Amino acid sequence: MLHEIAEQPAVLEKIIQTESKKLEKLGAFLRGKDIDLIVLVARGSSDNASLFGRYLLEITCGIPVSLSAPSVFTLYNAKLNLSRALVIGVSQSGEGVDINRVLESAKKSGALTIGITNFAKSTMAEIADETLLTHAGREKSVAATKTYTGQMLHFYMLASVLSDKKLAFEKIPPFADETLKLIPEVEESVQRYVFMENCVVVGRGLNYGNSYELALKLMETCYVVAERFSSADFFHGPLALVERRFPVILFAPKGVTVQSNVDLLNRLKELHADSFSITNDKKIASLSSRALLMPKEIDEFLSPIPFVIPAQLFAALLAKAKGLDADAPRSLTKVTKTI
Amino acid sequence: MLHEIAEQPAVLEKIIQTESKKLEKLGAFLRGKDIDLIVLVARGSSDNASLFGRYLLEITCGIPVSLSAPSVFTLYNAKLNLSRALVIGVSQSGEGVDINRVLESAKKSGALTIGITNFAKSTMAEIADETLLTHAGREKSVAATKTYTGQMLHFYMLASVLSDKKLAFEKIPPFADETLKLIPEVEESVQRYVFMENCVVVGRGLNYGNSYELALKLMETCYVVAERFSSADFFHGPLALVERRFPVILFAPKGVTVQSNVDLLNRLKELHADSFSITNDKKIASLSSRALLMPKEIDEFLSPIPFVIPAQLFAALLAKAKGLDADAPRSLTKVTKTI
Repeated sequence: MLHEIAEQPAVLEKIIQTESKKLEKLGAFLRGKDIDLIVLVARGSSDNASLFGRYLLEITCGIPVSLSAPSVFTLYNAKLNLSRALVIGVSQSGEGVDINRVLESAKKSGALTIGITNFAKSTMAEIADETLLTHAGREKSVAATKTYTGQMLHFYMLASVLSDKKLAFEKIPPFADETLKLIPEVEESVQRYVFMENCVVVGRGLNYGNSYELALKLMETCYVVAERFSSADFFHGPLALVERRFPVILFAPKGVTVQSNVDLLNRLKELHADSFSITNDKKIASLSSRALLMPKEIDEFLSPIPFVIPAQLFAALLAKAKGLDADAPRSLTKVTKTI
Repeated sequence: MLHEIAEQPAVLEKIIQTESKKLEKLGAFLRGKDIDLIVLVARGSSDNASLFGRYLLEITCGIPVSLSAPSVFTLYNAKLNLSRALVIGVSQSGEGVDINRVLESAKKSGALTIGITNFAKSTMAEIADETLLTHAGREKSVAATKTYTGQMLHFYMLASVLSDKKLAFEKIPPFADETLKLIPEVEESVQRYVFMENCVVVGRGLNYGNSYELALKLMETCYVVAERFSSADFFHGPLALVERRFPVILFAPKGVTVQSNVDLLNRLKELHADSFSITNDKKIASLSSRALLMPKEIDEFLSPIPFVIPAQLFAALLAKAKGLDADAPRSLTKVTKTI
């Protein structure tokens, strides 16, 4: 897992170099269509990347996005009217049975379909009208890292060509590279959390998907019962969980979500909770019990990929500190074939 | 909270009697429009009711549904193209600031808007083109119960008129009444969970929203760190959490989700986990460590409201057994005004 985390800058760079032309053509084609809905279909980490994609596409393209509920198709056999929809399946292996079944059903109902996967020869690639590849090489670790950020990058590239706005995603691979320098700081940080059994991970907007992803990593590699909320939802009930020293981990880049995170940190302080922020905002850092300081030049719009890398490191190194093997989580397999 | 749980059959009956005519007119109007997307906007328990509504509307009407991310509007100031959308805000108080802002923005972009709320004189009722009322009287408990099931019933009534299919929702109030007879069984069940600190709540399809709702109730009234997953997502990572006696609570009515729940229960058995099922399926009951037996005549399509009532009772009675006051959760207020 640690090895694969470190490969990410190179994988991201490769995606940009290999896939850009295909995406430009695809964009020109899609802009000529009357698309008024984008549906994203995924599970697990790919679903968390899609949660990010949802915010990005709505904010950048102004097209509403729905995160698909596969059972509507696979268990209830519903026929949705998707004739003006673009349906995007996201799967590391391209072999998620339910995901592929939704893609097939969407195609039949007239939707345009795209697959984002790591395997050019997968079932997903066969079904989808167009396939975007994550070029991550084989991902051996059960806990997805490089395919997760690769999928996220594809959403930037897609948003860029769909909206015909140039988004500066080429800055992301060097940002990713820079965050890898934080390994010593992360290694030191995890010491405090060796005996942590529960926590809440908070992220908002473009970093909301990351809160799901870190929580999932903590569940699968560290066996920590990790909740995930937006800082807004947290006030609707879950705040009652918080007692003295209850750990809350925040993705809190400078930008539009700062005020919401400041409000939450102030409330957590009153409750004597423990807060750990991944941030490049001074105020956030000063209000947190602990902070991992990220490079200042990363703006919120480009933060989700570089900000998740120290979080992946946190999970991998916490597992190690807990004496667990992050590469072989109990009870799990790499490809999950639910319907 | 216990008092308000018991009021539900009467509230549900009142909604049917008072709102049916308004809904029939609304349905006739909406069926004449070219709606190709429904957007649901809510937070907290209302968001959990909307998660149910999402499955119900897609399955029954074949119109894709998106659960709105309010920050796209409130923090990122995005303008979504919602000209062919029906946008439904759901809020107990009708005063959720972010929810109302999304409704206003949707209206400006040409969407039809509906509010589902308990207050005819709320800001939401002023903004929305049409308001559906939950007629629950004042809900004093911070933990929503009667407004949650009232919102769910409105989704049945709306799905019925939108699809022009008669759904047998008039059976729901008597089903709800019957489940209240289970109080002694629930009271006995909670004894086993007095020292429970973590758990996972599982539901799928039409009962997926209920898994979020019970988890939220357990967080806010019992301070239990409660995860929520569909039985499909559970295999994508979170299963690693499960160790000997780890408690998993399932909504498992007979019907299309049984096989998926049977697969999960078999796996949980191998891991020596503790499973507690709310079910009317014999096989599910026999595979569970404990089961709360629900009336057989409740089919899956109508199960979400009657099945959540014993779950509400479980949370309220577990809080009592833990020596906590379910009516006054620490750190919370009834109306939450985030943006």
